[in-house]
Order: sequence, then C-alpha cells, then structure tokens
Amino acid sequence: MSCSEFSLIEKYFSRQTASRDDVLLGIGDDAAVMQLAPNEQLVVSTDTMVSGVHFPEDTSPFDIGYKLMAVNLSDLAAMGAVPRWASLALTLPDSNEIWLEEFSAGLFELAKQYSVQLVGGDTTRGSLTLSLTLQGTVTSNQYLQRGNAQVGDAIFVSGQLGDAGLALRQLLAKETINRDCLVRLNQPTPRVELGQSLLGIANAAIDISDGLLADLGHVLDASQLGAHVQLQDLPLTEAVSSLTAKGDWLLPLNAGDDYELCFTVPDSAIAQLERQHCRLTRIGTVVEGKGISCFTSTGKWDLPDDLGYEHFTSSLNKELIS
Amino acid sequence: MSCSEFSLIEKYFSRQTASRDDVLLGIGDDAAVMQLAPNEQLVVSTDTMVSGVHFPEDTSPFDIGYKLMAVNLSDLAAMGAVPRWASLALTLPDSNEIWLEEFSAGLFELAKQYSVQLVGGDTTRGSLTLSLTLQGTVTSNQYLQRGNAQVGDAIFVSGQLGDAGLALRQLLAKETINRDCLVRLNQPTPRVELGQSLLGIANAAIDISDGLLADLGHVLDASQLGAHVQLQDLPLTEAVSSLTAKGDWLLPLNAGDDYELCFTVPDSAIAQLERQHCRLTRIGTVVEGKGISCFTSTGKWDLPDDLGYEHFTSSLNKELIS
Repeated sequence: MSCSEFSLIEKYFSRQTASRDDVLLGIGDDAAVMQLAPNEQLVVSTDTMVSGVHFPEDTSPFDIGYKLMAVNLSDLAAMGAVPRWASLALTLPDSNEIWLEEFSAGLFELAKQYSVQLVGGDTTRGSLTLSLTLQGTVTSNQYLQRGNAQVGDAIFVSGQLGDAGLALRQLLAKETINRDCLVRLNQPTPRVELGQSLLGIANAAIDISDGLLADLGHVLDASQLGAHVQLQDLPLTEAVSSLTAKGDWLLPLNAGDDYELCFTVPDSAIAQLERQHCRLTRIGTVVEGKGISCFTSTGKWDLPDDLGYEHFTSSLNKELIS
Repeated sequence: MSCSEFSLIEKYFSRQTASRDDVLLGIGDDAAVMQLAPNEQLVVSTDTMVSGVHFPEDTSPFDIGYKLMAVNLSDLAAMGAVPRWASLALTLPDSNEIWLEEFSAGLFELAKQYSVQLVGGDTTRGSLTLSLTLQGTVTSNQYLQRGNAQVGDAIFVSGQLGDAGLALRQLLAKETINRDCLVRLNQPTPRVELGQSLLGIANAAIDISDGLLADLGHVLDASQLGAHVQLQDLPLTEAVSSLTAKGDWLLPLNAGDDYELCFTVPDSAIAQLERQHCRLTRIGTVVEGKGISCFTSTGKWDLPDDLGYEHFTSSLNKELIS
C-alpha cells in the first residue's frame, strides 16, 4: 500500500465500526495479519463493480458502498461461510471527500451487521471501479459448493426474483420506479444466515447474481445434471407477476442482481430447512441430463433463444447499461 | 463470480502452472477454500494498477501481468510472509484474447516462481484496471512491521535505487532507454526470500514503492522516530550515479517503483544478516526525533521542498504519467 492512498484510506476507512479480535495488524502496514482457529478454513471471494456497467452512473455513493459489500457477502453466503475480513481496491476519478464519506458509510453499514473488518486495500486514480475481496471461514470441510447437486434434489430459491431487474428496467426507461424494487436493486440483502443454515442440508448452492437460469445453469453444469423448473412456482412480487402474466419472464429468469440463493436439497432433508427471515420456495427438481426445462401449468414452455443461460457465456460481462 | 467472467477466467487462467495442495476449492465456485496450518496466520495485501497512471498505456500485457504479481509479492516480502494464493480483479475495455494470453503468461511466470496459485477473481468491462489480492502466511506472530524501528538501528536497503525511475523518465521523454533499467521498471524483483530471512533480525521493514524518502518516512512515522541518511552510501548503478553527481537526487530518493526492501536492524544483529542474491547496503541510522536528515560527505544536505516525503500525502496517488 503506498503512502498517499494510505492516508486517504486512513481518513475515511478508519471510521469503521467493526473491530475484530482476530485482526492482529489491520490498515496501515504493507499487509494485514489475521488469525484463524486451527479447525477453520479460509474462504475468499472477489467481486468488482464498474460505474456505468454494474450500476448507473448516478447511483448514490452510499448505495455503491452498500452493494459492493452485499454482493461479496452474497458469495460467501453461497458457501455457508462466516464473513470476517475485507480488502478494498478503490479506483476513483478524483479525491471527492463527500463521495468517500458516503461510500464508506454504505460499506460500513452492512459490514457492521456482519462484523466484517476492513483490513486493507489500495486507492488509485482512474475510472470509477470498485473491487472488494472478502474473506471468511468455515469449519473444516463444511462448505457448500456448486458441483454436488444430486438427481431428485428439490431446487429452492430464497426471497423473490426479478425485483432488482424491474427497478433497473424502470430506471433506464425513466419510468416511475417501484420504491421497494429500487431498494432491492441498490441494497440487496445477502442471505448469509440462510447459507450457514444450509450446511449439512443442501447438496449444492449458488447466489443468483446473473439470473436464475444462468446461475442454476452453473450448478447443473458443475454437477453434470439437468433440471425441471415450474415457472408457476417462482416466488414473485405483484409487480413482477403482472409482467409474467403477460408472458414476459425476462425479469425472474434472466435479470439477476437479486442476490438470492438457489440451492438443491434431497427430499429426505427438506424437513430440516429452518425458518428464515426470507421465503424459501421450491421451484423444481434436479434430473438426469443437461439443461433446464421450464414448465407452466399447461405444459412445457420453450425458452426464447435470448433467454437461455448459454447466452451469457459469449459476452465479457452483462452490460445492463450501455 | 458471475458466469461470463468465469468462462473467461477459466480459459486463460486455468493454464497456471502452480497447483497447491492447500487449495481445497479453486477457480469456479462462488469462493475459494484454502487450508492453513494451526500455527499459521493469514497475511493479506491488495495492490491496484491503472493504465496510464501506474504504467504507460503501451506497456506490454506480459509486463503488466508480471509487475502486478511482483508489486503484491513485494508487499508480502516486507512482512516476511510466504506467498500462497491470489485473487485477480481484472477490468478490461474489451475481450482481447491476445492481450489475455500474454497478460496471464506474465502473471503466471512470477506466480510459478513463488508457488502462488490463482484461486479466483472477477473479470469486468471498463477502463484497464488490475487489482490483485495476494494471501500468504507467517508462523504465528513472526512477521515484520513498520512501526517497530528503534533508536540506533542501522537502516539498510536492498539492491539499487532509482533504476526504475530512470527508465520511466527516459520512456516519457522518448530518450534512448537503458535496457537494464527498463527491466527493473517492468519486471521488478520482489525480495521475498530476503523478507523471510529478516524475521527475528530486522526491527522494521517496508518495500520501496513510492521512493526511499516516502517509504522510510512511513517506517519513521509509525515508529515515532527520525533518521540520518548518508547520500554517498546509497546503492546506485552507474546510470543513476551519473545524475546524482550533478546534484539530481530525485531518482534514488523519490521515484520509487524499485520494489526494494528498506529495513532497520539493531547493531547487535547486523552480523546475522545472511548473504542474499541482492546487495544489502547500510545507508543510515534511526535517531530520536522526527523526519529524515540527509548528509553528504561535506555535511548536511537540505532536501528541496519538492523532495520531502510529506509531499506525497497531499495527492490521491502519484501520477507518473499525466
């Protein structure tokens, strides 16, 4: 960490509220030093957000900070890990102190909820790009992964799907914005407690950042299996279901950004699913084969070509805002 | 990690040569999982490089990859840590496969030397910005830090100072470039083995990324002490000493980018310094007080105003290229 970025980080990021006993050396040296317990393993995830690509350029700095922490927490949630330490790589066009003040307030609001301490990072000048590396722990070998779904597993999702996508669609079209959906877009709720509760119950898990079809697709690819999904069972708010009633399934299936968990559970373990703050909804079943088949109450529903998850892999990343 | 960036990372970054037994889950899930031994502590550093700020825009992708790994290894070297795992946040203007091929070759060339395994990351679209979070370990509580210099400690630096700065100066002025210095600019040698050899010997250490005065200044600030530095003792190559002979001390004192280590050693421990691949040169002494006093063979040498390390803290980061 070089000198100037250190002073900037020190000023705004030393105000954090989380202070962990397991941090032996935090911000201010060449690196941070942390303590794990002997029966713990390290879990690490990195997520980057670019202005104009991952969020509209006029997004509030508070929301940018909040969401940056949320999307990384969501990755650790999908592992069933306990989040602990974060490193921030912040690239800014200029040293705007009001921006930094609000950004760090958003970042720390969510960090505090999960006792995540910022232990270091780097601040550089350039186009607004934010990258967080979040580190957590699991008890030895007790983590969720994508590649272990089994034939017959029930497929569940948490919360509701498509709300964040609806808010973004309204924002870009300059329509009246559904306020509840906007909160879901800007301040998603990482399902950290849910992820931890799934250890020993779920066979596979992933967080839904790119849309249900894309992310469930990753679980199936990694597990070398397929799935049947019942569209009428998807958990939708009224705002989104008013669109699916007209045949527009893009938001719940493809829009992503909801940061719900999608996980698969053997029938025998469904009864062990604990009550959560969020809804848990069974939406389908893992089957032999490859790919996702969707069904409605009237039968098989063919995915439009632009809706399949294979679509995504051809582009560098989803640019919601061009 | 979202789907599209995963496929990109998978294609170019699964070719790495380092594969560590302590990586339980690497690239391809929501997060990576790693194993530390019970007597180990985690050491984490993040460094970001922005095109046009930290390197000229026409720098080769191989050199960008190499240097990104080198500057992060240098931070762990300054802790005396053993590097182990890396996460890459890569923001690219477009999906240029030749660029990715060469960049990853440079990154992995150095990673292989130190058995560093890439365990995850994120690839996004935007202005070229590269951030690496490098993780390593130390045996419990055996790490170097900045804030423990003691009065009377000898101040050492490794290698030579100012070569990288000279190459950059020649590059920007479109002068004939000293090839040895250019290698030092584009492919600095992180002093990883030296850092580890200093455990139990050095009281304080830092890597020189921003220039000797700036970085030694951090050690002194953190230790609440001052220093006397003998300019005639600075280790310089002929190219740089031809400039200091004319009174231009900017390169060895201020230019940075050499990624040598600066460390302080009590007199009683100097004899324990092991022979290294690089020169180790005593350049001064830690004293009571505050700030750095420089001396030449003819007496005290007053720092020009623009040469003091206080200078740096007012800017967001050093922009060598405007």
